[in-house]
Amino acid sequence: MRAVALGGGHGLQATLAALRRITPAVTAVVTVADDGGSSGRLRRELGMLPPGDLRQALAALAAEDDGGQLWAQVFQHRFAGTGALAGHAVGNLVLAGLLDVLGDPVAVLDHACALLGVRGRVLPMSTSPLEMEADVLGLDSDPDAVRTIRGQVAIASTPGRVKEVRLSAVGTEVPKACPEAVQAVLDADLVLLGPGSWFTSVLPHLLVPELHEALVRTTARRVVVLNLVPQPGETAGFSPEQHLDVLSQHAPRLRFDAVLADADSVPTPDRLRAAAQGLGARTVLEQVAMPTLPGRHDPQALAASLRAALERRSDRWR
Amino acid sequence: MRAVALGGGHGLQATLAALRRITPAVTAVVTVADDGGSSGRLRRELGMLPPGDLRQALAALAAEDDGGQLWAQVFQHRFAGTGALAGHAVGNLVLAGLLDVLGDPVAVLDHACALLGVRGRVLPMSTSPLEMEADVLGLDSDPDAVRTIRGQVAIASTPGRVKEVRLSAVGTEVPKACPEAVQAVLDADLVLLGPGSWFTSVLPHLLVPELHEALVRTTARRVVVLNLVPQPGETAGFSPEQHLDVLSQHAPRLRFDAVLADADSVPTPDRLRAAAQGLGARTVLEQVAMPTLPGRHDPQALAASLRAALERRSDRWR
Repeated sequence: MRAVALGGGHGLQATLAALRRITPAVTAVVTVADDGGSSGRLRRELGMLPPGDLRQALAALAAEDDGGQLWAQVFQHRFAGTGALAGHAVGNLVLAGLLDVLGDPVAVLDHACALLGVRGRVLPMSTSPLEMEADVLGLDSDPDAVRTIRGQVAIASTPGRVKEVRLSAVGTEVPKACPEAVQAVLDADLVLLGPGSWFTSVLPHLLVPELHEALVRTTARRVVVLNLVPQPGETAGFSPEQHLDVLSQHAPRLRFDAVLADADSVPTPDRLRAAAQGLGARTVLEQVAMPTLPGRHDPQALAASLRAALERRSDRWR
Repeated sequence: MRAVALGGGHGLQATLAALRRITPAVTAVVTVADDGGSSGRLRRELGMLPPGDLRQALAALAAEDDGGQLWAQVFQHRFAGTGALAGHAVGNLVLAGLLDVLGDPVAVLDHACALLGVRGRVLPMSTSPLEMEADVLGLDSDPDAVRTIRGQVAIASTPGRVKEVRLSAVGTEVPKACPEAVQAVLDADLVLLGPGSWFTSVLPHLLVPELHEALVRTTARRVVVLNLVPQPGETAGFSPEQHLDVLSQHAPRLRFDAVLADADSVPTPDRLRAAAQGLGARTVLEQVAMPTLPGRHDPQALAASLRAALERRSDRWR
């Protein structure tokens, strides 16, 4: 089974950790709109694709042998101290070096996959760094005033209420998809969207036109994995069903087969079921939270839920 | 045949490039007293072993297949621009990351060797960063006044005349040798010293007591490879025989089997032969310079000279 997970950050790490238990053919399609932290510094200094979410995906898919785990640990290691390197993740610098030498981000990621013993593939959603902007309510005394704010960090941490996000590529109007990512979605048997920072890690994939079109056209089963808790900032106070509403507003033609949510994180299951039905999806409620680490999915439980869901007969699954 | 090359920088790269044509069992024993450039910045920021000469040795021994050559190129690549990373060699940052994670420099270098497909081994002469100081003449109006200057860069570029160099480990009086480097020298069949910046890349190895002792005790053939041209700064105006005199002053008990020099770079062969005899060594004069790159040894010619010398009967070689 060929599975594609779209997202970024910890959410994508959770789905990748779950999917690798189900199939070796996992492709991560990763957001490249980050402008904060080590990635933001590298993006500004070297004009490169922000590497942080790509690095996280590589680490999540690293082989479980000594070599894979060592390099995953080195990639994830951040320099300490207060100097010029402080806070940089080593893997970000390796990806920057490979990119300077090879030029092509897909070749870079294939070499990084080889180093970490990844059996699947890690791809950027676009081969150019992308810029995000968002229309946000509630930043002024007038509650109906809409302000446009720019940058992933600014959007993720806004105290306002995000209405809509948009993407632009540096220097062009329309962000171009990575062709290999488009093909992976078209060839997939299963596509997972979410969990993760909804506006800044999950929805961006829908804002790249060719990727959006591939998600609409693919014959893969499409599954939304909802967050366990609303993100502070961008989705503070959002209910699970509001996550689906926002998804639908950004991709009205996109249908899903299932919406997978943690049973304990859904206060009003009926409302969620109604919202899921609006996307063509059945709702799967399971215990998928990590008992010891609130807010994080348990990869094993998530894998079991996905496997069980996939093993149901097609008519029940639909 | 087990060969050990001691040195640093471009000189060490030349002997490693030559030795790998003769035997797969090459060990580089590398100076760790650098305090300039990317290495100096990392040393100051992270308190780590200066990685630059180690990185150069790794690149010189990298496998000739695509993987080895790609990673060698990435390791040698320096970030451009004017930002916080500008000038840093990617390999230095990878070594820094590995060192943070693993702690042990020898384990770090073994993993780096595996990445670059090195069949031999790269070892630091000491597992702690070392400090150099030198007594230098000619820096004052009084020509006999001796000044002590500190740091590899300051010594390498001094306009004065270096009389003696000393090493100290940070926090201790006596620099400790890397045990694996000592063992490699004891187990070797051939040990090469030089070429390279004489005071700052070649002689430092003699200033680590355990390494000095191993060089005296080893049953390996010991060969000095002389520089093609005097280094501007530290050995400006030094004749080939003066290089041997300085070597002898820093290691009076150390005997050599041969002194290998480029025939066209020795103005007074008789004087060189006399100085070599003082070390117990015969003099081998061959064409070993690179025709297209003045001042650099041609690895192929150097390998041929070494191979020819090693194939001579023991009595003629001695």
